Amino acid sequence: MNTRTELDSLGEIALIDRINRAFGQTSQPETVRGIGDDAAVIDTGGPDYLLLSTDMLLEGVHFDLAYTPLKHLGFKAVAVNVSDIAAMNGIPLQITVSVALSNRFSVEAVEELYEGIKAACEAYQVDLIGGDTTSSRSGLVISVTVTGRVERDKITYRNTAQPNDVICVTGDLGAAFCGLQLLEREKQVFLADPTMQPEISEDRSYVLERQLRPSARTDIVYELRDLGIVPTAMIDVSDGLASELIHICTQSKTGAVIFDENLPIDDVTYLAATELNISPITAALNGGEDYELLFTIRPQEFEKLKNHARITPIGYLTDKPESILLATKAGQYTQIKAQGWKHF
Amino acid sequence: MNTRTELDSLGEIALIDRINRAFGQTSQPETVRGIGDDAAVIDTGGPDYLLLSTDMLLEGVHFDLAYTPLKHLGFKAVAVNVSDIAAMNGIPLQITVSVALSNRFSVEAVEELYEGIKAACEAYQVDLIGGDTTSSRSGLVISVTVTGRVERDKITYRNTAQPNDVICVTGDLGAAFCGLQLLEREKQVFLADPTMQPEISEDRSYVLERQLRPSARTDIVYELRDLGIVPTAMIDVSDGLASELIHICTQSKTGAVIFDENLPIDDVTYLAATELNISPITAALNGGEDYELLFTIRPQEFEKLKNHARITPIGYLTDKPESILLATKAGQYTQIKAQGWKHF
Repeated sequence: MNTRTELDSLGEIALIDRINRAFGQTSQPETVRGIGDDAAVIDTGGPDYLLLSTDMLLEGVHFDLAYTPLKHLGFKAVAVNVSDIAAMNGIPLQITVSVALSNRFSVEAVEELYEGIKAACEAYQVDLIGGDTTSSRSGLVISVTVTGRVERDKITYRNTAQPNDVICVTGDLGAAFCGLQLLEREKQVFLADPTMQPEISEDRSYVLERQLRPSARTDIVYELRDLGIVPTAMIDVSDGLASELIHICTQSKTGAVIFDENLPIDDVTYLAATELNISPITAALNGGEDYELLFTIRPQEFEKLKNHARITPIGYLTDKPESILLATKAGQYTQIKAQGWKHF
Repeated sequence: MNTRTELDSLGEIALIDRINRAFGQTSQPETVRGIGDDAAVIDTGGPDYLLLSTDMLLEGVHFDLAYTPLKHLGFKAVAVNVSDIAAMNGIPLQITVSVALSNRFSVEAVEELYEGIKAACEAYQVDLIGGDTTSSRSGLVISVTVTGRVERDKITYRNTAQPNDVICVTGDLGAAFCGLQLLEREKQVFLADPTMQPEISEDRSYVLERQLRPSARTDIVYELRDLGIVPTAMIDVSDGLASELIHICTQSKTGAVIFDENLPIDDVTYLAATELNISPITAALNGGEDYELLFTIRPQEFEKLKNHARITPIGYLTDKPESILLATKAGQYTQIKAQGWKHF
């Protein structure tokens, strides 16, 4: 082969697009939906659809063991996968977990990791049904696959939203990003002078927990069921609200307007962002790793969850594709851009 | 935590046992079988059971890019997973593939890897339905999850064999191991003197192909169907015949006798083993990575495949658990031990 194209010059998103195009159409009648949503959808002939999603986490890329307790890491590896099932309006069933580790880990360390995995299995009521433990020449690698089920008439994709739908988000945003920035700051201080003790005040624990041990919003899936609401589209907030909203709009061929004053941001996130000299709005829009659910509902459904404590309406969809706008209180509109571009 | 137990002191098998015990019983009614067989078994309420298996391959542990073409590696990563579905007497349906790679890989190299993945998807008629491509700080990591289906009355576990069952194996054994030894030998020669050209004669290509681009025996699953045979137990030969036979015997609480003169060994494997100063019988028993199927059938079924070209009867099961014997032509019996112990 004569040409060599550097991965950096292409970028991760373009590479994935190129691979996906190469695989084209699926051929098995059981495959309802392949690549392109939070989880794949399989029709096994049973009453519900089966959902399948997978995520691989690598040391030094997705987590830093300098400040990540192994128990939290095990929990998080499961939770981020369960979150993909919730994003399809589904209930998780089972997971497989493959772990690669080097001999710098002790048996006790490995057991801590699995304790976290077990805690997540109990929290989300999923069975561990497979996977393996193998050696690694370098860092820790955790690969989790999750299954779930969803009634056929309740499945929620990314590409089925419609103009005028109300955009809602669960919980609050930007906390996980601020938590990460605090942890990174303390790590740099420690590296510069190992005699320094970490200095994160206790009242910042909320943002640290959001980063280190996020929750998947399966509770919302059950609540939407109780309220009789099937969202018109849904996605989980892993890369940041901006990036996820763009996914829904692009795939559904709609535009959007969201209001900055409506973005749910916790007080601790405000304080941490201010301390870090970050705009709380930027943290909420582009921070990522909150694992909240972003979804859209028909306007006539809005009454049902208008005063819901953990669901916030933040805007609405429009019939102007590519116009994805952030509106300020002062009446200014700016185009929202995704900051999720990753380099190799 | 005050104690530190080294992983080496415990070993991989003991660690996995310890983890599995910690997870204990499964709780979802959909989970028919969790950890402990080639694939997990899920009852989705459809006519068939759904099968799920996963495998993670790491550079420097499971493959060496010094002599592994990326296209073959992509194919192999899928084939070894499909093999786990075949071992349950199932038909593969879909795969997810997660790949982590560093920027020392070019876009062309990544495309080669995915070409091999695609070739395997076509060979085994499976859909690629998910996964992702992410960056790695060190080596290449490939994690594949495969789904499959099997009719409820045809599922084949490891723990359901009975005394007097005939032990059969597909294809031939030991080739993949001899291929690996040849490749390793040439690598050492090259490292010692980079001006030396590799010297593997062309008539050894069979054992190289068996190592670099193994096949999953889905063909046998279809043939057993046509013959009207449901094996009493089945497992794929990934760690070596000895290790797999011990799994069937231990889990089914039987003993076994196999005959060394019956072990199917290809002529090229004999030649390569002789060249490498390895006993061909040892290669067949302990080599691993052949991805053939080892299965047992009721004695009365034996007539149906007595003269089958790609299935060889190698012995029978006994009612003496823990007595797993290799019989020589001279009438000597030796206890078979697994060599599959791996250190961290």
